[in-house]
Amino acid sequence: MKIGVIGGGQLGRMLALAGTPLGMNFAFLDPAPDACAAPLGEHLRADYGDQDHLRQLADEVDLVTFEFESVPAETVAFLSQFVPVYPSAESLRIARDRLFEKSMFRDLGIPTPAFADILSQADLDAAVASIGLPAVLKTRTLGYDGKGQKVLRTPEDVVGTFAELGSVPCLLEGFVPFTGEVSLVAVRGRDGETRFYPLVHNTHESGILRLSVASQGHPLQALAEDYVGRVLQKLDYVGVMAFEFFEVDGGLKANEIAPRVHNSGHWTIEGAECSQFENHLRAVAGLPLGSTAKVGESAMLNFIGEVPAVDKVVAIGDCHLHHYGKAFKVGRKVGHATLRCPDMATLERKIAEVEALISN
Amino acid sequence: MKIGVIGGGQLGRMLALAGTPLGMNFAFLDPAPDACAAPLGEHLRADYGDQDHLRQLADEVDLVTFEFESVPAETVAFLSQFVPVYPSAESLRIARDRLFEKSMFRDLGIPTPAFADILSQADLDAAVASIGLPAVLKTRTLGYDGKGQKVLRTPEDVVGTFAELGSVPCLLEGFVPFTGEVSLVAVRGRDGETRFYPLVHNTHESGILRLSVASQGHPLQALAEDYVGRVLQKLDYVGVMAFEFFEVDGGLKANEIAPRVHNSGHWTIEGAECSQFENHLRAVAGLPLGSTAKVGESAMLNFIGEVPAVDKVVAIGDCHLHHYGKAFKVGRKVGHATLRCPDMATLERKIAEVEALISN
Repeated sequence: MKIGVIGGGQLGRMLALAGTPLGMNFAFLDPAPDACAAPLGEHLRADYGDQDHLRQLADEVDLVTFEFESVPAETVAFLSQFVPVYPSAESLRIARDRLFEKSMFRDLGIPTPAFADILSQADLDAAVASIGLPAVLKTRTLGYDGKGQKVLRTPEDVVGTFAELGSVPCLLEGFVPFTGEVSLVAVRGRDGETRFYPLVHNTHESGILRLSVASQGHPLQALAEDYVGRVLQKLDYVGVMAFEFFEVDGGLKANEIAPRVHNSGHWTIEGAECSQFENHLRAVAGLPLGSTAKVGESAMLNFIGEVPAVDKVVAIGDCHLHHYGKAFKVGRKVGHATLRCPDMATLERKIAEVEALISN
Repeated sequence: MKIGVIGGGQLGRMLALAGTPLGMNFAFLDPAPDACAAPLGEHLRADYGDQDHLRQLADEVDLVTFEFESVPAETVAFLSQFVPVYPSAESLRIARDRLFEKSMFRDLGIPTPAFADILSQADLDAAVASIGLPAVLKTRTLGYDGKGQKVLRTPEDVVGTFAELGSVPCLLEGFVPFTGEVSLVAVRGRDGETRFYPLVHNTHESGILRLSVASQGHPLQALAEDYVGRVLQKLDYVGVMAFEFFEVDGGLKANEIAPRVHNSGHWTIEGAECSQFENHLRAVAGLPLGSTAKVGESAMLNFIGEVPAVDKVVAIGDCHLHHYGKAFKVGRKVGHATLRCPDMATLERKIAEVEALISN
């Protein structure tokens, strides 16, 4: 089976590493000449709107999937004429736009911060008056890793901010005094079978994920599965989805969904029976899903900007390096380490060892 | 770091799958147009004696390693002029010739079946008179998976057998009434650090490995490590080596070594903290070695001739498919399954489930 992937970054790379042992081959459509998934498959170097190359991809592969949600709607619609596309165009349409996403949460009865659609500075002023400060203004589309958003704390912060974010459609979200950030990675097969990984505690810095720790018996697991299950069913979703929540007052408020394998699920490569990457491929290929059970206690630490010296990383016991083969650049995710330990005390000690390498 | 691999079969493929997350790139030299490692790196399609392509490989990579031991000595010598080669030319020279191999065992005080060098039918007749029957006549080089050998049970079997194996240099080995076959996979770093995986029980059929089961606390582990350690030190070996033994009278007799990652070590991909593939790459790259400890109870079943239906294989819990992406052909190794289970009882049940797929 040959899988077409829109995007050829580290998520595509890890999909190929997981799918090759299943007998799958891969083709990546990505305009970047140095797309880091390229060594693991065919690389169609073209823009995401290039219909000639999209048609070539569709003709070569059995199905198409995505490693990022910001792919143009026209691309998805065009591909869907010729080849099965998972997740569906509708799933991507919702996930790529914060207004559609938050509206879906509300319609499904899933708690989410107060929000308002912002098409002008006047909309923003009115929404601030209604929702209050602090609040966060985010572009409706194309935001990631803290990009395309601004925290508004004082009335002065509000002045001219719509123009500052490019005068594009935005969403204002009320600030949530959260005590923690968790995500639930789920997978749903073509037949509707659904499985959930354990809730993951996430720590961000400057809007970029730094640390994910898989939980055990989290008291909010069942609630999170209920919420995510509603979305998966509503979208008739196929593949892996990650759902980010704020922990607030012992409950959950929905932040956002990612219709793809997700950074907070990278620990599953070593830390779960079947990784999010293999399970995504099983789902889209119509294969039985794999176990989402943990193997030991697990965490993931991102390497941002650069990967520490490889000999130092692999010298740490229980540590598994995932180097993305990308050029090092400030603020760029260039690798991660998974820790898989027999108990939480060991895990915490090993997290500190990897963190010491990162800060040096 | 870019690694050159002589040979582009499934061992090269699994080396690339293990090394890519370490940030390594791969180039494979293999004359086969459909070399199954090719999708995971650069494929230099050339004969193993093609000096232009060998030179090109040496210029492109940081070091060269091998996925099979029958590479011509001239190839190794040529490459060694330009680039580090692991394991060494001397290690390959010994391992590729059964006479050198057995003589080394004898010199190092490692028990091995009686043997005699056979260069003619007269040599064979004399050796049979001395060693007795049953015995096995094997070509000194190029044998694998039971090829290039003949079991001699009666005096009639001996007649004309030297010609039957091609009138090439052979070794006659006395038959050993073994109670089991075990192998020890070891890894030795550039600095001499050595680690051993648990002894593995192997089951062959028609000379081809079918099933490997990793042991726990095997009473012969220490003895096997002693024997293998002698060979590794003698050869100043760098990389993974597999050492096959016969279990005889509660002791071990050396059968043969493989100077490379080995089929009886495939279970380590999921069944050990650090796989034989990653450890081989760590060793040749001069990185610290990884843990050889088991994760749960583990076994490996080979898929010979064909891979059963993928949906059936992955539907078995605790089962991990490794499809080599090779054309199916009778007697050819085209994939394997690793089982990783919480206990031996579960493992035995799962082995039976996979075996049922193979026989159907």
